[in-house]
Amino acid sequence: MKAKIGILGASGYTGYELIRLLALHPGVELAYLSAGSSAGQKLGEVFPDLVADAEMRLVPLSEALPIPVDFVFSCLPHHESMEVVPKFLSKDGVKAVDLSADYRMKDPKDYEKWYGKAHSSPDLLKEAVYGLPELNREAIRRARLVANPGCYPTSVLLGLAPLLKEGWAADAPILADSKSGLSGAGRTPSLKTHLVEAEGSVAPYSIGRAHRHLGEMEQEMKKLGGKGCRLIFSPHLIPMSRGILSTLYVKTKKPVGKTELQDLYEKAYAGEPFVRILKNGKPPETKAVKYSNRCDIGLTPLEEDALILITSAIDNLVKGASGQAIQNMNLMLGYKETLGLPFQGCAN
Amino acid sequence: MKAKIGILGASGYTGYELIRLLALHPGVELAYLSAGSSAGQKLGEVFPDLVADAEMRLVPLSEALPIPVDFVFSCLPHHESMEVVPKFLSKDGVKAVDLSADYRMKDPKDYEKWYGKAHSSPDLLKEAVYGLPELNREAIRRARLVANPGCYPTSVLLGLAPLLKEGWAADAPILADSKSGLSGAGRTPSLKTHLVEAEGSVAPYSIGRAHRHLGEMEQEMKKLGGKGCRLIFSPHLIPMSRGILSTLYVKTKKPVGKTELQDLYEKAYAGEPFVRILKNGKPPETKAVKYSNRCDIGLTPLEEDALILITSAIDNLVKGASGQAIQNMNLMLGYKETLGLPFQGCAN
Amino acid sequence: MKAKIGILGASGYTGYELIRLLALHPGVELAYLSAGSSAGQKLGEVFPDLVADAEMRLVPLSEALPIPVDFVFSCLPHHESMEVVPKFLSKDGVKAVDLSADYRMKDPKDYEKWYGKAHSSPDLLKEAVYGLPELNREAIRRARLVANPGCYPTSVLLGLAPLLKEGWAADAPILADSKSGLSGAGRTPSLKTHLVEAEGSVAPYSIGRAHRHLGEMEQEMKKLGGKGCRLIFSPHLIPMSRGILSTLYVKTKKPVGKTELQDLYEKAYAGEPFVRILKNGKPPETKAVKYSNRCDIGLTPLEEDALILITSAIDNLVKGASGQAIQNMNLMLGYKETLGLPFQGCAN
Amino acid sequence: MKAKIGILGASGYTGYELIRLLALHPGVELAYLSAGSSAGQKLGEVFPDLVADAEMRLVPLSEALPIPVDFVFSCLPHHESMEVVPKFLSKDGVKAVDLSADYRMKDPKDYEKWYGKAHSSPDLLKEAVYGLPELNREAIRRARLVANPGCYPTSVLLGLAPLLKEGWAADAPILADSKSGLSGAGRTPSLKTHLVEAEGSVAPYSIGRAHRHLGEMEQEMKKLGGKGCRLIFSPHLIPMSRGILSTLYVKTKKPVGKTELQDLYEKAYAGEPFVRILKNGKPPETKAVKYSNRCDIGLTPLEEDALILITSAIDNLVKGASGQAIQNMNLMLGYKETLGLPFQGCAN
Repeated sequence: MKAKIGILGASGYTGYELIRLLALHPGVELAYLSAGSSAGQKLGEVFPDLVADAEMRLVPLSEALPIPVDFVFSCLPHHESMEVVPKFLSKDGVKAVDLSADYRMKDPKDYEKWYGKAHSSPDLLKEAVYGLPELNREAIRRARLVANPGCYPTSVLLGLAPLLKEGWAADAPILADSKSGLSGAGRTPSLKTHLVEAEGSVAPYSIGRAHRHLGEMEQEMKKLGGKGCRLIFSPHLIPMSRGILSTLYVKTKKPVGKTELQDLYEKAYAGEPFVRILKNGKPPETKAVKYSNRCDIGLTPLEEDALILITSAIDNLVKGASGQAIQNMNLMLGYKETLGLPFQGCAN
Repeated sequence: MKAKIGILGASGYTGYELIRLLALHPGVELAYLSAGSSAGQKLGEVFPDLVADAEMRLVPLSEALPIPVDFVFSCLPHHESMEVVPKFLSKDGVKAVDLSADYRMKDPKDYEKWYGKAHSSPDLLKEAVYGLPELNREAIRRARLVANPGCYPTSVLLGLAPLLKEGWAADAPILADSKSGLSGAGRTPSLKTHLVEAEGSVAPYSIGRAHRHLGEMEQEMKKLGGKGCRLIFSPHLIPMSRGILSTLYVKTKKPVGKTELQDLYEKAYAGEPFVRILKNGKPPETKAVKYSNRCDIGLTPLEEDALILITSAIDNLVKGASGQAIQNMNLMLGYKETLGLPFQGCAN
Repeated sequence: MKAKIGILGASGYTGYELIRLLALHPGVELAYLSAGSSAGQKLGEVFPDLVADAEMRLVPLSEALPIPVDFVFSCLPHHESMEVVPKFLSKDGVKAVDLSADYRMKDPKDYEKWYGKAHSSPDLLKEAVYGLPELNREAIRRARLVANPGCYPTSVLLGLAPLLKEGWAADAPILADSKSGLSGAGRTPSLKTHLVEAEGSVAPYSIGRAHRHLGEMEQEMKKLGGKGCRLIFSPHLIPMSRGILSTLYVKTKKPVGKTELQDLYEKAYAGEPFVRILKNGKPPETKAVKYSNRCDIGLTPLEEDALILITSAIDNLVKGASGQAIQNMNLMLGYKETLGLPFQGCAN
Repeated sequence: MKAKIGILGASGYTGYELIRLLALHPGVELAYLSAGSSAGQKLGEVFPDLVADAEMRLVPLSEALPIPVDFVFSCLPHHESMEVVPKFLSKDGVKAVDLSADYRMKDPKDYEKWYGKAHSSPDLLKEAVYGLPELNREAIRRARLVANPGCYPTSVLLGLAPLLKEGWAADAPILADSKSGLSGAGRTPSLKTHLVEAEGSVAPYSIGRAHRHLGEMEQEMKKLGGKGCRLIFSPHLIPMSRGILSTLYVKTKKPVGKTELQDLYEKAYAGEPFVRILKNGKPPETKAVKYSNRCDIGLTPLEEDALILITSAIDNLVKGASGQAIQNMNLMLGYKETLGLPFQGCAN
């Protein structure tokens, strides 16, 4: 029997990507799609390429609530999501993945610091599991509520995890210089996503210690590394639709050689279906993971400087959002982890 | 002494382009820039690349009105422009170019048909001169108010004019299949200009007999051709910032050969500084006119079919809007027609 | 048992797309990939995003020939393909789809006219079936050799077929104004596909009666319409990777109304899995068919002018090449026609 | 009297940009354009948008040599340039700017290390002046041969100079994470510049200690900072035509505050016509310097970490190549430094 799925906030890019991917998933069927201002429209009007359920009408949240489902994805904005997710979870047996930032921080004070508002369901915050399957698989399987990681954190944490776990990083700030496509800025039109403004331009923003994802990344880095990891984070907007490339600079306690580093990463991700460690110092390109749930990682140790450069590429809407959300759902519903998920991308 | 210039509605793309080009014009100085919601901001905040007058503050229309000027450019939207332009023209000696559609139609009924509202200053409508200098130079020189042509009409009319004037077109609808960059859709963010929506897609819109520029084009075609010219017009949005390429299909009374056609066009535009007739059947590309006030025209006669294909390329913001407006201003103020205007573009 | 597949000329874009799509096809397995200068390289080196068979090595044609297969796709250039395809077909039971132009023209004289060389296997030319399943399904099922249609012809013929079959077109040239992404120009680097040259530019080429696909289109139009159809064809390069949008202008014998036209097309393509007729005059956009094997068609009758505008969108590498080739293979091997083929695209 | 100018290697992007910019320069006239495989073609055939000298024919190097000139720009590739430049300089009074890397390294051993070949004119190497006017103006004025800086080095060195001169940088490697448009890869078509390969992708290359510009940058950093500066350099290809954005991470001896840092940079570049220090922590975007000879610099001190982030944006073909070459020429010929050079760019 197929699991009945509800998607909240279906008219943005993460909603789009969920619907597109779930249409190819054999274990689910859509029960409803909720939306705000797009409620009342048919799916095919909101997204003209989505043909599988083109006639399905988006409903307001209030109409969605009573419809029985097995699983809910929340693509609502932060602040909104924490008001709504508890209502769905209060029903018997319902599980959820929240794609907003609302359940990512473990400490309500950290949430308030980075998101500017007191958390309204701190108990659920405590219960929620951080949904990076490669680092946290067993807890996700047992979870009722999974906080889907941010797009930048996914690319940064997968790139850093083996080094941090092994304790090789020196006691110095780690630098993450990230380059992101514009779908990361959301579907609501704004000047910065206007093609005429964005085409042909690279634009840094919130660099240093200012971006909200910093709190989430440092929280998870600490879990991995056991002590006071500190991150300097520089995101840049790139004139393309999809993709994040993070270039990571990690000072190590002692010099690390090529073979040693390659071995560490290959072992750490051995058997992982959605991580590929590139060989021979080849760096990844975002096009090779476009439309794929894969993270490609390249390794460039600078032995003489006791410095390691790691380059990590994901599709921000797939492994960085909706693909990972489905990977989490698969684990939570007892499906095969890779079910319905694209491993191969489409570069050209 | 430099002419004092006011620009109304300065925060959109035609305003931007006027400011950018006038900064290099030796005969003018900016008296004010007016704007709606951007009023109060500095120019450098609204357009971070405009350094010449970066500290100048945009003012609301009401503050602009009393400031003395010699010349006004209105970049206001249609409907708004006709409410405002008369106030500026009522002052002694002030002249204006209106870049909106408000003064382009000669017949108030045509205005109402295509723009859905009765015209509020029909006397000025009668007085206004249609500002395509290559077809209308002497009237522009004497004008107090010039209606700057639309971007599509500029590319279509310059492509058709010699054929129509010569009376070669058969009594059959002319087809214009136009491809436009996204700056033509304006600077106000919308879903269709969102890079993620627009990148990698060609999108026809308002094709056939639906687009507002049809009225303007047929009006001017009639002036040129003397009788009932009819146009089928198919605009398409193209994933690029600037440029219009119009592919024109004209049935002729009798077959026309290569040399004959080439001669017609070269003679028609001999001495024109901003029109270039390409040779040997080479079609134009929009990149060759990017940032230039030039129109490039290519000729492909199909003698066997008594059909002529004309391809015409302009930069929609320069020859299709602000560059042409300055060309008109030069004529109206008695400057050299080419003063301050770029002939060469920047393709790469 | 899975069919064993050979792909000749695997290092270009149609080869890429075949490999990408066949990796998701449950009824086949790759026996070999042949290439010219890329022979010896691993697939993952030639296309870094193709992970399914990344370790498979491309072989020279001479090594491919003796390897037993059930089915061959030739992605070789024209002229080359007709030298090679007969060798593979001479083996017992082997069938083939040729993606080049070599087997598309029925008359060897037409081949020589458009492709500049006498045909070297005129018997096979006679035997080959033109592979547009929507028009030619039963013959394809029985074929040993299918000539896969060109990308432009696919978009134009699917747009015209119902009109032509019904005999509604007047005795006047039909105009096809097509806009194509740059993958249509092939993978061999050239100045026109250089991003710096192509970005931000629309470029017509071979317009009028000059493009090679004209012969193929008129040949098939005649089959559909019964008499002397004539086409004027204007292709344009658009700064995007994939997609063709054809805007078709057809003069009709008598005026045709909206409902009548909509009915004609909906009936003509009823039950077709890969054709979607849009409603209410909505034109298609190429993004809605990106990565999909679907053709979207929009209808704009201009009753007053006895003229019909048809807009047709495909992904040139899928329905315009490799997807259609697989659709043909499915028919030829007795598989379900839609097996392994994407109906839904990916617009964003 | 206008200076007579020769351009060697005129058919690439730096040649293009020189010709385009010099067409607007009142103090020069073109004596010849030399080229390799494009020799014999007219300028208008090689670059269809360059109309000013469209009829001028490109000549082979051997024909250029005897033509008398006052000034030569060499846009030849490295290795070739050092074979040719001495021949032109051996003539009385001729001066030159070399845009290749051949005269940038002071030590012939460094040249051999980074460029893989013994230098063929070491005396000229010694004589040549490194052409970054903001750092080296007086020496350039007196120079006979100026080595024009690389594009990456221009963006990095202008960003670092005030900090290094002041001696604030700690004894730790400086990190430069650079993002470059594809014109930096040259005009010769290659797979990596194919629009279909490059669109929608970020691709790191030669990261760490591998890129040739490293030697040039460390040489100049040492001049500025007085001792063993070390650089880690990570270039990335970005899907756009023009622009470089360098994000620089500098560890400082002691924490530096906002005001202090802003003051340092504003004083260091006070009066510089082509450097703009942004205020209030605003980072630059490449679009704001497109087609401009300006470098925009943004400052983000992280006081708590004793770390400074500097973001620096240039147009790689203007300030990063041909614009700077003209700036150098202006100094060498005694013209006003800014003559004929664009300060304002074109963002949209």
